[in-house]
Amino acid sequence: MTTASKKPRIGIIGTGAIGGFYGVMLARAGFDVHFLLRSEFEAVAQNGLRVESAVHGELLLNPVQAYASAADMPPCDWLLVGAKSTANVELAPLIAEAAAPDAKVLVLQNGLAVEDRLRAALPDSLHVLGGLCFICVHRLAPGVVAHQAFGAVNMGYHSGPTANADARQAIVEEGAALFKAAGIDSQAMPDLQQARWQKLVWNVPYNGLSVLLQASTSALMTDSYSRELIMDLMNEVVAGAEACGHSMPEGYAAKLFATTEQMPDYWPSMYHDFREKRPLELDAIYSRPLAAALDAGRDMPKIRALFQTLAFIDFHNI
Amino acid sequence: MTTASKKPRIGIIGTGAIGGFYGVMLARAGFDVHFLLRSEFEAVAQNGLRVESAVHGELLLNPVQAYASAADMPPCDWLLVGAKSTANVELAPLIAEAAAPDAKVLVLQNGLAVEDRLRAALPDSLHVLGGLCFICVHRLAPGVVAHQAFGAVNMGYHSGPTANADARQAIVEEGAALFKAAGIDSQAMPDLQQARWQKLVWNVPYNGLSVLLQASTSALMTDSYSRELIMDLMNEVVAGAEACGHSMPEGYAAKLFATTEQMPDYWPSMYHDFREKRPLELDAIYSRPLAAALDAGRDMPKIRALFQTLAFIDFHNI
Repeated sequence: MTTASKKPRIGIIGTGAIGGFYGVMLARAGFDVHFLLRSEFEAVAQNGLRVESAVHGELLLNPVQAYASAADMPPCDWLLVGAKSTANVELAPLIAEAAAPDAKVLVLQNGLAVEDRLRAALPDSLHVLGGLCFICVHRLAPGVVAHQAFGAVNMGYHSGPTANADARQAIVEEGAALFKAAGIDSQAMPDLQQARWQKLVWNVPYNGLSVLLQASTSALMTDSYSRELIMDLMNEVVAGAEACGHSMPEGYAAKLFATTEQMPDYWPSMYHDFREKRPLELDAIYSRPLAAALDAGRDMPKIRALFQTLAFIDFHNI
Repeated sequence: MTTASKKPRIGIIGTGAIGGFYGVMLARAGFDVHFLLRSEFEAVAQNGLRVESAVHGELLLNPVQAYASAADMPPCDWLLVGAKSTANVELAPLIAEAAAPDAKVLVLQNGLAVEDRLRAALPDSLHVLGGLCFICVHRLAPGVVAHQAFGAVNMGYHSGPTANADARQAIVEEGAALFKAAGIDSQAMPDLQQARWQKLVWNVPYNGLSVLLQASTSALMTDSYSRELIMDLMNEVVAGAEACGHSMPEGYAAKLFATTEQMPDYWPSMYHDFREKRPLELDAIYSRPLAAALDAGRDMPKIRALFQTLAFIDFHNI
């Protein structure tokens, strides 16, 4: 691991499916990766991290540089936040503790405005970036992640000490280069909010309907009524994004729809949250987009109805 | 029962919760009531019909004039159709068999256009009326009905040999008088379609959401998100009705909302259909109103989203 010391040091905050997968991939590419864990610390310290990937085969990282406390971590240049957005307020102090003075914090979460509360609670010297993961992963057991398909991470600059657009873009490209060095497709996006809206075109229909209808993607893509509803919801996201000044690429919804049809059967992350009685990421994926679109004069009635039913379910699920 | 012979003879087609309750009430008022049954024939022939009413106490009708075949029934002057609207096509020949030559067929079902298919399959000499039941009842066991609250039946003329408006109104008033004679509040409505839309203001939110959220009225009326969604759905029905030329009484949605808040906890009929894996009445309660409003240039997007999710559930429930 002598080469690792010349590369940026990476900290993984929240080693669930997302943090686990990307952390293992980066560590295998020779980066010096440190993992902060909570409930799974013992299992990972003992048995390492395992990714059962349909793409890359079985990947085992053992030993793992695992920590139960952020105070024990060395200062990291990059911090990847893979925890649920519902925990962001609690995460901020841990991130600050593990961060080098000018560290870059990459928030690998879905939805809108997930960086805002983190940002407010982090030192001004830290750069905050947002990352969108196009990936099918889920946690199988403590320290074990199933990777079904894809893996790309698109990222954009959110906020930080640099106001200069070129300097911001250089930081985003540095981040994308880390992932590319680990064999992961990654793009530096010029506009983070636009990228977040684009990701919502998938998340809004599939995450919510997987919970509401207790159905995975292949069931949702088989029934003619759910297909129609998915397309309607996607079109509402596209219209909402456009009202907010973020136009989507031509035919984007139809392309995502077709891609999902070709995907292996998949249970979106919100379904796993529901099953394990964790709070659902309704604020990031529904409330914030609904509020943003409404502020721009555009209601998204079917998305609102979906949100209202999910909020009822979430309340009764805890 | 000598007085009964001077009163119109009444046939009950589909002795479930609705047919059972009204049939028992009419029989107790001295009418000559004949019940057509299918799966519950043996139980009712042996033990009679029992209504466990929170309003009227326990009502037992025994013996019951019960029939397993419509061909065995005497010609009835009034036929009350309490079966599910999803079975209307199969019911028409049974109704025709049990009907006196100029009988009145009162369709006690929810939704729009439930009379249309029946009408097409019935002799022209029969009058068809629609009836809206404002009642909380459900089937407890074969031949046993729980009655929780209310009971009113509002009715209107649908179609038949009489074109004259006064003659039609006289028939509707004759029907309302039967119910009133049995101590049941009943109004002759000048416009059946208007009455059907008015009933939809309740049925659209509560029936569908009880299935989608596995929740009874009191749970739905406690959560702030479901309350908001119910009010939104009610407002869409009111706007759809108005687009179709049926204006609702001032403040009608708000009044129904408040009434539901005061009601005993109630599981709507669609929930019972779902639990017992019967087809849901989606055509009458959702598809027809959606199509009618859209024809009049008005979409009802939240109702459409609710319908799309229910159609998915219905398909996977059988």
